[in-house]
Order: sequence, then C-alpha cells, then structure tokens
Amino acid sequence: MSKPFPASPVSVLGLGMMGSALAAALLDAGHPVTVWNRSAAKTGPLVAQGATPAETVTDAVAASPLVIVCFTTNDNVGETLAAVDLTGKTLVNLTNGTPAQARALALRARKQGASYLDGGIMAVPQMIATPGAYVLYSGDEQAYETHRPTLAALGGTQWVGTDPGRAALHDIALLTGMYGMFIGVAQAFALVRTENITAAEFAEPLHAWVSAMLGGVVPGVAAAVDSGQHLTDVSSLGINQAAFSNFIETYDDQGVSPELFVPFQKLLDRSVAEGHAADGLSRLVDLLKK
Amino acid sequence: MSKPFPASPVSVLGLGMMGSALAAALLDAGHPVTVWNRSAAKTGPLVAQGATPAETVTDAVAASPLVIVCFTTNDNVGETLAAVDLTGKTLVNLTNGTPAQARALALRARKQGASYLDGGIMAVPQMIATPGAYVLYSGDEQAYETHRPTLAALGGTQWVGTDPGRAALHDIALLTGMYGMFIGVAQAFALVRTENITAAEFAEPLHAWVSAMLGGVVPGVAAAVDSGQHLTDVSSLGINQAAFSNFIETYDDQGVSPELFVPFQKLLDRSVAEGHAADGLSRLVDLLKK
Repeated sequence: MSKPFPASPVSVLGLGMMGSALAAALLDAGHPVTVWNRSAAKTGPLVAQGATPAETVTDAVAASPLVIVCFTTNDNVGETLAAVDLTGKTLVNLTNGTPAQARALALRARKQGASYLDGGIMAVPQMIATPGAYVLYSGDEQAYETHRPTLAALGGTQWVGTDPGRAALHDIALLTGMYGMFIGVAQAFALVRTENITAAEFAEPLHAWVSAMLGGVVPGVAAAVDSGQHLTDVSSLGINQAAFSNFIETYDDQGVSPELFVPFQKLLDRSVAEGHAADGLSRLVDLLKK
Repeated sequence: MSKPFPASPVSVLGLGMMGSALAAALLDAGHPVTVWNRSAAKTGPLVAQGATPAETVTDAVAASPLVIVCFTTNDNVGETLAAVDLTGKTLVNLTNGTPAQARALALRARKQGASYLDGGIMAVPQMIATPGAYVLYSGDEQAYETHRPTLAALGGTQWVGTDPGRAALHDIALLTGMYGMFIGVAQAFALVRTENITAAEFAEPLHAWVSAMLGGVVPGVAAAVDSGQHLTDVSSLGINQAAFSNFIETYDDQGVSPELFVPFQKLLDRSVAEGHAADGLSRLVDLLKK
C-alpha cells in the first residue's frame, strides 16, 4: 500500500508469533520497520518482507521514534531495556502481563526518558490487521493520539485510560470472561460425550442457549452489582445451590471430573451459609472480593 | 382461550414457583387442571384461576390421564407416588434431578403401570408459556407424541431421546455451559470493580467479547473433540498456561479471590505436564474424563 506521504518508522522488538505478526502488519501498511529479536534467526522472514534487522537493542530503539515491544514476559522487557537510552521515544509495550507489571514498567520507561503506552491485544497472531482484531491502550494519552494512526495498522485501537495498568486489567477481565465461558463449554461437551452424543450435534443447542443466557446475565448482573440490590424472585442462590448438587452428582455419575466446578459449589454453599439464600447469583460478585 | 373441542384434563403435583407456573399455563390454555400440593395452602391462587384441588395424591392422579410432577427433589417424587396406582397414566416428571434418578423413576413408574416422560425445563418460572421457554423431553416416545399438544402449553417442546435420563443430561449440560459463562462474567466484574470501573460500563465490551469468542469456541472445540485433532497453531495450551499465571497473579494483586479459576490453572498445568503443550484448549475436554 503506497501512501501520499512517507509513513513513520517503527521498531519492533520481540519476534515471536505475535511480534512477527505485528511487524508484518506494519510493513504491509507501508511503514519502514526495524526488527530485533534475542535470537537473530527469527528476523529472516520479516527482512524478506522488507524489514531492516538491527544488530542490537540499542540500534533498534535508535532507529524509530515509536518502539513496539512484544516479549514473552514483562521481566524480559525490563531486563532488555534496562541500559538503553529511551530519550524522546514512545515505548508501546504489548507484552502479556499484569496491571502491576505495566505500572512498574511505565515508571522505569519515564525515568529513562520515554513516553509509555501499555497495550492488551484482543486477538491471536493470525487475526492481526483483520477487522476482528483490536488492541486496548492505556498510559500516556498524548503519545497515544500521536501514534494512533500507526497503531491502527495492527487492528482497532481502543483507549481505556491514563493508568498504564488499565489496558492489562481490561484485557485480563475480558479474557477471564472467555475462560469462564470455555470452562462451561468444555464441561458440557465432556458430559454429553459420555452418552455418545457428538460434540457437533450438541454444539448448536449449546451455543444458542449460552448465547441467550449471556445476553440476559451480563446486563442483569451488572445492574445488580452496581446497585447492590441482589434480591430476586427469579433464580435465587438457594435454588441454585439445591440444583447444583445434582450437577456435581451427575458429573461423578457420568465419569466426568467435577474439578472445574467444585469451587463454584463451595461458593454457592458459602453464600447461603452467610445468609444470601434469597439473593440472585449477582451476589457472588461481591463474595469474590477478598 | 376457547378451543374447538374440550382440552384434555391434566393433574399437576407440586405447587412451588415452577409447579404453580405450569398449572397456570395449562389453565390459560383451557385445560381442566387438578392440583395437589403437600401443604394445601399453595392451591389457593390456582383454585381462584379455575383449578380443582385434590384432597390426596391418589385423587389427583385419578383425575387425569396426564400427571405432571414438579417437586423439589426426585426423592420426593419416588416417596409421594410409591403407593399410588398409576395404571394407564402418563407421568411427566419435570423435577430437577440427575439422569440416574430419572432412569430409576422411569423403571418404578413402568412397574406401577405408567408411561414415563422426564423433562428438563429450560426456563425460570416467570418464562413459562413465553416464546423463550422450552422443555426437553425423553423417555416414552409414544406418550410424548400423544401429549405433546398439551405439553406445548408450557413452552417449546424438544424431544431428545428414549433414554429417560437423556433430558436431564441435556438440561445439566446446557446449564453447565451457562454456569461456566456466569463464572467468567462474575470474575470479570469483580476484577474491574477493584479499579472503580462500574459493571454497567464494562457490560457492553464484556458481552461483545464473550459473545464473539463463544461463536468461535463452540464449533472449533466441537470439531476438535469429535476428530481428536487437538494440535493448533493459534492458541496452544503452552501459551494459555503461560498467560494464565498472570491472571491468577492479577486476581490476587487486585484483591479478588482466584478460587473459581485455580482448578482451571491446575488443569492447564496438568495438560502441559502430560505432553499436550502444542494442543489447543479443546484437549482439556478429553482430560476431564475420569
């Protein structure tokens, strides 16, 4: 894609599956891209696509005003950049990590002279630069506004706040929702297979049901959580507790491990023991606070 | 609603919230309804709507060819009907229970001369007789075909097989999917609230994200489970295991209990320890088999 004026240079540090996908997307969008990886072998395919390999991290950082980092852990980020001059650079850290790690790295980056943005990539590498991909950003808002046109090459951009830990928090909360959904789907498939029902034949009813419930549960729980009004006449914790013992018994009867759902049963039991039998499931959100 | 010919009589045993909703729906559909409950006080509102109260279970069963039972537990069903003549009756048991319980009750009912249908109600009482409600049925298929027009007054009817335990299995598998989804949603809300993000403002992105993931995960996992091909280059168990330690750390950092997700982390750890690091999450369905 040619552009009416030269696209700004970008350096990409870390060329795992995700880092390589990010660098390729930036090349596709017409940016001069400098790449660096701890083991230089991984630069090959990107150099073939037009990227410039850097010999050292210092060279890679020096090459562009915008430096995107995607390592395996945030420990790697801190160690790799510890002795590098970041004066005037914008560091965009797309490494998976915790909010606390992001906040600590933001402090260090600022001390080293950089503006810091943290990002949570809501996509697998294969989705980068497709319409379904988006990246959550938080940290230095001015740096975000400056580089947003470049970052848009990776996928949709979504600003979540000036706290550099906020993108990781959103990312982890969204993926937590997905993992919970997966836990339910996995247990459901494990269960029906014990009766020689194929996953394929159960997939459509399962998808339809969970999708319908999701559409009601999310806003319903949100309203109850925000208002603190958990009383219900629809599906109380008492009723759920009574029903759930049948679930655990059925998993056992059918030879499916109940391990993923035992803590949920214990939480239901605790909610009733603590006097919340007449409340809805939304009460459990409060009980998860330590 | 008047009908061109007299609607067939139905007896409803058990008038909790669900049993009362079932009886009311049958009355609304024009059926003569006989009701019975262990404590007679609960018959009042239904009698006011036109139901006939029965003095004893035996009287209630004698009054109609179709007998719908909705008790708190299947133990109640067995005990209450133990000494009742069920010759020629169709017993439709809509009590929550396990597949094994349903199979045992079907055997007993047949010995007492009845046809047996077991049902799983995919609705809360307030939804009965609305378009969103449906009931899964299994057991005696001829009895199902005979009484389906009457049962349709409660909600959509869905046949799942001649094994009387099948409706409970489907019911529990679908609700398991819902509970997993709920676990994810509850944990996500608990997490964002620690940073003073309201549940309402997180509800829309959470719903959109989980809904999108659900649409991909269900058919993807189903195909992998049925084919036994779990290898992936998209999101391997190794990658998920590495990421998930950040999740547990974040829950802890933010003061949210990790209790609902600790077994999932252990299962990820086990999957990698057993040599499945390159497989996708679908492999976990196999690992749940005891």
